[in-house]
Amino acid sequence: MIPKGFLFSTVEAAIKKPGRKDLALIYSEVEANIAGTFTTNKVKAAPVKLDIKKIRSGRGQAILINSGNANACTGKKGMKDAVDMISLVADSLNIKPSLVYVCSTGVIGTPMPIERIRPRISELADNLGRSAIGDVAEAIMTTDTFPKIVKKKVKMGNKVGCIVGICKGAGMICPDMATMLCFIMTDIAVNQKTLDKTLINAVKKSFNRITIDGDRSTNDAALIMANGMLGNPQITEKSGAYPAFKKALHELTLDLSKLIVKDGEGASKFIEIEVRGARSEADAEKAAFTVANSNLVKTAIYGNDANWGRIMAALGYSGIALKEEKIDIYFGKVRIVNKGVSTGKDKEAGKALRGKDIKIIIDLHIGGSSAKVLTCDLTEEYIRVNAAYRT
Amino acid sequence: MIPKGFLFSTVEAAIKKPGRKDLALIYSEVEANIAGTFTTNKVKAAPVKLDIKKIRSGRGQAILINSGNANACTGKKGMKDAVDMISLVADSLNIKPSLVYVCSTGVIGTPMPIERIRPRISELADNLGRSAIGDVAEAIMTTDTFPKIVKKKVKMGNKVGCIVGICKGAGMICPDMATMLCFIMTDIAVNQKTLDKTLINAVKKSFNRITIDGDRSTNDAALIMANGMLGNPQITEKSGAYPAFKKALHELTLDLSKLIVKDGEGASKFIEIEVRGARSEADAEKAAFTVANSNLVKTAIYGNDANWGRIMAALGYSGIALKEEKIDIYFGKVRIVNKGVSTGKDKEAGKALRGKDIKIIIDLHIGGSSAKVLTCDLTEEYIRVNAAYRT
Repeated sequence: MIPKGFLFSTVEAAIKKPGRKDLALIYSEVEANIAGTFTTNKVKAAPVKLDIKKIRSGRGQAILINSGNANACTGKKGMKDAVDMISLVADSLNIKPSLVYVCSTGVIGTPMPIERIRPRISELADNLGRSAIGDVAEAIMTTDTFPKIVKKKVKMGNKVGCIVGICKGAGMICPDMATMLCFIMTDIAVNQKTLDKTLINAVKKSFNRITIDGDRSTNDAALIMANGMLGNPQITEKSGAYPAFKKALHELTLDLSKLIVKDGEGASKFIEIEVRGARSEADAEKAAFTVANSNLVKTAIYGNDANWGRIMAALGYSGIALKEEKIDIYFGKVRIVNKGVSTGKDKEAGKALRGKDIKIIIDLHIGGSSAKVLTCDLTEEYIRVNAAYRT
Repeated sequence: MIPKGFLFSTVEAAIKKPGRKDLALIYSEVEANIAGTFTTNKVKAAPVKLDIKKIRSGRGQAILINSGNANACTGKKGMKDAVDMISLVADSLNIKPSLVYVCSTGVIGTPMPIERIRPRISELADNLGRSAIGDVAEAIMTTDTFPKIVKKKVKMGNKVGCIVGICKGAGMICPDMATMLCFIMTDIAVNQKTLDKTLINAVKKSFNRITIDGDRSTNDAALIMANGMLGNPQITEKSGAYPAFKKALHELTLDLSKLIVKDGEGASKFIEIEVRGARSEADAEKAAFTVANSNLVKTAIYGNDANWGRIMAALGYSGIALKEEKIDIYFGKVRIVNKGVSTGKDKEAGKALRGKDIKIIIDLHIGGSSAKVLTCDLTEEYIRVNAAYRT
């Protein structure tokens, strides 16, 4: 199921290696409300700088995306290239440039091969179709090993709306977005301010709670377009239909986040780290991220080694309030640490690490707040992927 | 050359695998002034907790060190074991327990095999000798691949004093000390307050400016004993001889820091990252550490890939003040980034990465402060070492 009024297309523009789609267009047949969140990195790619300004209007109709080149740290030429890409899309679709957004992902610092992109844009516009959403999910991939699409249906009175999201991730993944692009389309009519607030809250608990390598990208963007073609009365936060929409969007972004972590560069295990009993949610989140970003914790889990001492050390330098002698740690259902010391269940805990889905619970027992962070292990394959990324 | 009055010994106490020395004693024949700095991790090993209290006296005569077990997260038993170890050393040497310090390094969370340590302490005391300093440097190793000893001579009027330092590092290495133990011995007479201040300043610019994996340990300690057996007039900050002592101690700790980084777990390259032109030294240090701790930067350097975009991204999320369009980056002598954009010299920069000693200079051009941080690359071998550490 594809939300009404959205069309898609892709081409190979030789930005990436031959034989891989690398330029994609998302189009709504009518103007849509649009909202977005972007990287907090101070070094922002040219398209991100443009989109941040454009999105203030709250209106959009098309998104052009390329992979293989981030168009970041590319100076004035990079900005001109991004503006040109927008103009060409607007011309080809016969819509206002203000309604066109552009996103890039790939290598930082290499000039865009704009001469190879320019002649392909009208082709993108001419080939738009409903079925190509899967191709778009593929065209935005960089080191991803599989395309990521999640769909949700939402009952709106006697109608059934649809939300579909696609995203890419894999590396430079950290809170405050990650090297991540996410595009969400829905035919449900949603008030722009409501759309904005709901997206921000969903991202906060999903894309901003994952980490692969602790590196934060220059290009992250999550955009949602709501074109209203379902014909439902426009949703605001006060609408009876709002909770269902909100829930579906939260679930969709969380599902996409999990796909990103499962496809983490070189990852062999999916790890959920939950910190409970913290003084505040901020403390719980900070502690969970410190553990999740520890190379020593990640390599131990990769080696099926229940080396909980590394978790204690990470908690100790996380900077949050804690009392060593109150901490409990569980690997799966096995309590490996009781009140700060070993329970001796190393073998059972080691067994709990042998699967693909690992759950670690840390109970600080000094408060009532908790937070969950998703991450993956650190393997030789991560090194290989990243030592050879540009070769 | 060994400073006068210091004696050393080691035994195999079967804390580590058979065939490896793992228990060591450092002894001064007379009471010495002592100073120390310790981990800032909130989860501290039992010996660290003890030493922090003891060192307030400013006096010491012996240090017992074991490797193979960190005696961290070991609860009341761990504290009792550390106190017992101190008592046994004091008895064997016939000195006051208040003059004995204890340091441990190794696996966190496993109870100390105190029954194997206890019977060996008198043997340590009986076998003390000058030549065993090399054995001590070896006995404190965990994942280190070579022992680390640095010696400096210092002219004190018509006498020549000696400072010798040994340390271990290798993993869990980060600012605010690292999984690091460092023991410095000198026969120069130094006022305790002067000793303390000089050590703290030296550590700030050496051990606190290195990072291997960003993990901060529960056990770090750097101790210096000055026994005065050279017979020079006791040095204070106002002494004419002070600058020479200060310089020698700074050089010694910096040399030891470099040895730790060169022996970083799995490291194939030694990397110096210098940030210049920052608004403040704190900003320069923060930016240099963010770049040094980026897995993406470290893997790129491992792959001889001059992927400066990852450095720009790391600077962008470091949280410091910067202007993208003012940043210059050099790999060795090759300027790869000029005013925020590529100079196109990727090949030359790639060549500059091929050696073992890599220098990266980042000039922010927005201020007059700078800082240097030492680190190493991230390789498959780091993963292998840490995935299998306890097996």
